Amino acid sequence: MRLGVLTSGGDCPGLNAVIRSIVHRAVTGHSDDVIGFHDGWKGLLECDYRKLDLDAVSGILARGGTILGSSRVRPEHLRDGVERTRGHVAELGLDAIPIGGEGTLKAARLMSDNGLPIVGVPKTIDNDIAVTDVTFGFDTAVGVATEALDRLKTTAESHQRVLIVEVMGRHTGWIALHSGMAAGAHAIVVPERPFDIAELTQRIGERFSAGKKFAIVVAAEGAKPREGTMEFDTGGTDVYGHERFAGIARQLSLELEERLGKEARPVILGHVQRGGTPTAYDRVLATRFGWHAVEAVHRGEFGQMTALLGTGIVMVPLAEAVETLKTVPQGRYAEAETVL
Amino acid sequence: MRLGVLTSGGDCPGLNAVIRSIVHRAVTGHSDDVIGFHDGWKGLLECDYRKLDLDAVSGILARGGTILGSSRVRPEHLRDGVERTRGHVAELGLDAIPIGGEGTLKAARLMSDNGLPIVGVPKTIDNDIAVTDVTFGFDTAVGVATEALDRLKTTAESHQRVLIVEVMGRHTGWIALHSGMAAGAHAIVVPERPFDIAELTQRIGERFSAGKKFAIVVAAEGAKPREGTMEFDTGGTDVYGHERFAGIARQLSLELEERLGKEARPVILGHVQRGGTPTAYDRVLATRFGWHAVEAVHRGEFGQMTALLGTGIVMVPLAEAVETLKTVPQGRYAEAETVL
Amino acid sequence: MRLGVLTSGGDCPGLNAVIRSIVHRAVTGHSDDVIGFHDGWKGLLECDYRKLDLDAVSGILARGGTILGSSRVRPEHLRDGVERTRGHVAELGLDAIPIGGEGTLKAARLMSDNGLPIVGVPKTIDNDIAVTDVTFGFDTAVGVATEALDRLKTTAESHQRVLIVEVMGRHTGWIALHSGMAAGAHAIVVPERPFDIAELTQRIGERFSAGKKFAIVVAAEGAKPREGTMEFDTGGTDVYGHERFAGIARQLSLELEERLGKEARPVILGHVQRGGTPTAYDRVLATRFGWHAVEAVHRGEFGQMTALLGTGIVMVPLAEAVETLKTVPQGRYAEAETVL
Amino acid sequence: MRLGVLTSGGDCPGLNAVIRSIVHRAVTGHSDDVIGFHDGWKGLLECDYRKLDLDAVSGILARGGTILGSSRVRPEHLRDGVERTRGHVAELGLDAIPIGGEGTLKAARLMSDNGLPIVGVPKTIDNDIAVTDVTFGFDTAVGVATEALDRLKTTAESHQRVLIVEVMGRHTGWIALHSGMAAGAHAIVVPERPFDIAELTQRIGERFSAGKKFAIVVAAEGAKPREGTMEFDTGGTDVYGHERFAGIARQLSLELEERLGKEARPVILGHVQRGGTPTAYDRVLATRFGWHAVEAVHRGEFGQMTALLGTGIVMVPLAEAVETLKTVPQGRYAEAETVL
Repeated sequence: MRLGVLTSGGDCPGLNAVIRSIVHRAVTGHSDDVIGFHDGWKGLLECDYRKLDLDAVSGILARGGTILGSSRVRPEHLRDGVERTRGHVAELGLDAIPIGGEGTLKAARLMSDNGLPIVGVPKTIDNDIAVTDVTFGFDTAVGVATEALDRLKTTAESHQRVLIVEVMGRHTGWIALHSGMAAGAHAIVVPERPFDIAELTQRIGERFSAGKKFAIVVAAEGAKPREGTMEFDTGGTDVYGHERFAGIARQLSLELEERLGKEARPVILGHVQRGGTPTAYDRVLATRFGWHAVEAVHRGEFGQMTALLGTGIVMVPLAEAVETLKTVPQGRYAEAETVL
Repeated sequence: MRLGVLTSGGDCPGLNAVIRSIVHRAVTGHSDDVIGFHDGWKGLLECDYRKLDLDAVSGILARGGTILGSSRVRPEHLRDGVERTRGHVAELGLDAIPIGGEGTLKAARLMSDNGLPIVGVPKTIDNDIAVTDVTFGFDTAVGVATEALDRLKTTAESHQRVLIVEVMGRHTGWIALHSGMAAGAHAIVVPERPFDIAELTQRIGERFSAGKKFAIVVAAEGAKPREGTMEFDTGGTDVYGHERFAGIARQLSLELEERLGKEARPVILGHVQRGGTPTAYDRVLATRFGWHAVEAVHRGEFGQMTALLGTGIVMVPLAEAVETLKTVPQGRYAEAETVL
Repeated sequence: MRLGVLTSGGDCPGLNAVIRSIVHRAVTGHSDDVIGFHDGWKGLLECDYRKLDLDAVSGILARGGTILGSSRVRPEHLRDGVERTRGHVAELGLDAIPIGGEGTLKAARLMSDNGLPIVGVPKTIDNDIAVTDVTFGFDTAVGVATEALDRLKTTAESHQRVLIVEVMGRHTGWIALHSGMAAGAHAIVVPERPFDIAELTQRIGERFSAGKKFAIVVAAEGAKPREGTMEFDTGGTDVYGHERFAGIARQLSLELEERLGKEARPVILGHVQRGGTPTAYDRVLATRFGWHAVEAVHRGEFGQMTALLGTGIVMVPLAEAVETLKTVPQGRYAEAETVL
Repeated sequence: MRLGVLTSGGDCPGLNAVIRSIVHRAVTGHSDDVIGFHDGWKGLLECDYRKLDLDAVSGILARGGTILGSSRVRPEHLRDGVERTRGHVAELGLDAIPIGGEGTLKAARLMSDNGLPIVGVPKTIDNDIAVTDVTFGFDTAVGVATEALDRLKTTAESHQRVLIVEVMGRHTGWIALHSGMAAGAHAIVVPERPFDIAELTQRIGERFSAGKKFAIVVAAEGAKPREGTMEFDTGGTDVYGHERFAGIARQLSLELEERLGKEARPVILGHVQRGGTPTAYDRVLATRFGWHAVEAVHRGEFGQMTALLGTGIVMVPLAEAVETLKTVPQGRYAEAETVL
């Protein structure tokens, strides 16, 4: 058999582990050929690829990024390109295995609906894909954010400050919730649940009244105040129609400083959350996903995606995967107790 | 209500996170009192304890070890002490919540069967408790082992050596399997599956024949050769009847050096795997376990234990938890591909 | 003897190690009493302090921040407070040992010039104190920045971007130089040497022309363009007369994106650089400084400060220490080769 | 010009940073050619090498090990090979730049004394070369050991144990001293100063008497008891005439357990100390050494070695470098206060 691999959308620790695992399983287990397309769907559209053998994936397991490069998906381009892609796939004799987050899986579904032999591997640090317990990259992002929060606690304490730490999460608060719980943040604000600035101020205020000298607020980048409770610049949308963000941490720190009369400072963790060596957890999950994706190809299970269910890897339809966003459920807020 | 907490058995990163979470939930959510017994079951038997309020658990979330101390369980002592314990529990008006690994849960079950109001929290870095997807401490142990393996790979390569790295796991190979997969080890040997030394030698030998200059073998401390394939000193049993180990890494390195004619060296990771700050993953899991244990106490669900099932926390009977050891299933070996 | 300790100015990893070392040496080596003033010079002015014995400093060696708290110095307050301070010092029978960065050492000198028995310990992550080879906190800041840069490289490569990473350093480029060298940055801009935006653009452009797919620029927060080469918002000064910064990374990323026609993104590392557990290097240096400060007190060497000279610790006059800022010398730029 | 590079002796984090720096400086700064010999002096003797251009050293700055491979030196082989080497050097038109630790520098000196154009770069995690303030690799080794000690402290405390942690250092105690100071060990034993087992026992015993529940002893692998104070197996010498070690940690733990009546356990950190990604400190130092080595070649300063003196890099004669071992001076023991 001949397999094509591509990585698309935002960077995600574990991508190289998936690529390596696909190549290892395909070559060693099935004597397949594998090629890798460069820079995401673009490589498939333009037939730009290279051969991936065991040597090509040697030493990449622990490396961040993707050796294949990536690019953001513009669905309209893909729609126009379905025929072209179909041609390339036929010509190369391929079963393509895309890897991707929310946008990429939509593209994968589009391709699959048009009859292309696709097997998906979900990929997003945001952990917001509904049909899998977790996605690789998430654990690394949470780990990086938690380590930063651990560091920031001591500096906040020494300077008697409120620090508002902005972590990734445009539509869901998973990274904020987990890193906030892991680091013992004093408040967590998430997109799923617009916060009341008065409540937030009161919670932090009570902490200071009780004699504590600092506070840490973790804010997902997509968090926003309940309407009408605070002036807020949402930032609008960018040229792709994606939401832009005007900076929740910056805005919150100004507001809290004024309301509390305490020094407040924003910290924006940014791209460090999605780069660099993946955690052991993510390497294992990514490796398992890659292995099972190859098996699915060999069983002819197209239009499906690998998913973690409990401790096992299962295949689920791409159609299901893209239908709903996995938001943080109510019960998880209660456990954290610090989510407003 | 009045809750008693104790930590028993081997050290496990995340214990302090559980203690903190229990106190936070009990005090803040239910206005309970909490006391902590010192040094495991010993503290309960001797009525040696201290009050745990919010201040007592401030700043412990990310700390390894247990602020309550621990000690190994000797079941016969506990049996004799059931009456004494019952007296202390009545006197103090307690619902005790033990935290513990395999041995501790057995003790917890014994206490529970004798009518004491017990809620368990599973705790073992070995991940060998059947009724929960995972236990806290495991992710940290795997992370520490993986980081060590990442380091060892470069030194093995520079010196053209075979390194045999011994990780924890007396009865199960979970840590070996996950750290070995995460670091891309070239062979993994585990207790569940006695290895054939000839096969192992051949596998490493083929790697060198293919031009590679080093190899990493991960060995769970309880791994052993298939009977008759290699001379092996098992180490016998210690005074508690526990198996002792004579050092799989040391024995394997001597054997492989002779068979391969390549320098081979043992590395024994030892106690670093169970100490120190827990990963974000373990802190979140431990915090959730603590929270749910308190809820179970308030619902009167005694003789039960917290468990992770998929993404949710559930309660399962202690009786079930201690019945079988969770060994590495066959499918996981296939995924790893390097397990002999 | 009776010693007073205070920590003042910006947070710096290693402060707790100094405090611990002072207490250990004073108590164990000399049977001294030690007290610690709260929140920097404020504690001395207001006679707000607590006793520091061995138990008080147990477990703080590896902790970031300062158990004594800190506050920024406002020299005019200190000037007014000299008499008050003299009174407190007499009353308490003290030889005060301040710890501090640039501002704090100036305050220490003021106090010393007014006859107070001061021994200084230099403290700044910026490494800009002339009379010591290095200050503790610097190695930790460089380590944190380097780890972030390592992570950012993979994400920049995957997305074919220019990342401009802003690190601390208002007046000097030490952190930028060392983290940039350690991580292999492609350009480094520092306050000591205003950069030419055309040269910077050309250097990055040549990298892309040579087929490379990304670039990392490290910018000290106080870096600025050569006058007239680029529009630049300096940010002005804050209420203390300190320079404020309008964000070199943000401005550079906009400018480079336009000039290069490549996606460029700013990353601002911020407070994580000064928080959290110190590196082993900083813990050893801080411990040595504390030990020698106590010895200096016992030899009556007031108005002096500990300093690292090669591998040894020496005492140098505070007057000398505050005279000049240690800027990055010319030869170090040459070694780095990437400094513009 | 044409430069040859080789790496010899024990692995040392920072070797790749030196190689990269030599190539960068030679190629970019001087338009030199550079070749790298494989597996240390062996490559030079057998004329086994490859071309090193900028691409060949791309991405290696942060990687542990050495891309050139290494091997232990057997001086008698080198002596026989001087003529052969001279021939190869002439044939290839080379100024060889070896990198090496104690043994390698001796070999370098031998070659230099025989008229070969050698410039040395000192390299040893042991930090025992007299004429430089510090060698790269040392900071990484200390960092790895300190992190392990941080982890071990919590597990020792939870289990009320004495842990004896064996770190590298056959002839000198630098790693033991620095990691022990950085982690707050309760006793440190080093080769330079044979310890008195009775004193050591007493020190640990007093700690327990004072109510502490655990103790950490750091032991350099070459540490030994004062003669006659304790039975001790020195391990003898290996086939190269190098000292072998029978395990100070294992022997000490047995002895202390018996004398103290407390559980004592050995932990042997081993090869993790010399593998893996170097710290920022070591990367900067290694990069500077490489840069200056190339400059020295171009100035014709043969028979010399790069060295750190304060904050600057200087050249010192190889003859001086190999004359004496840099042992831990008396004053450093006093600062540590825990050294016996």
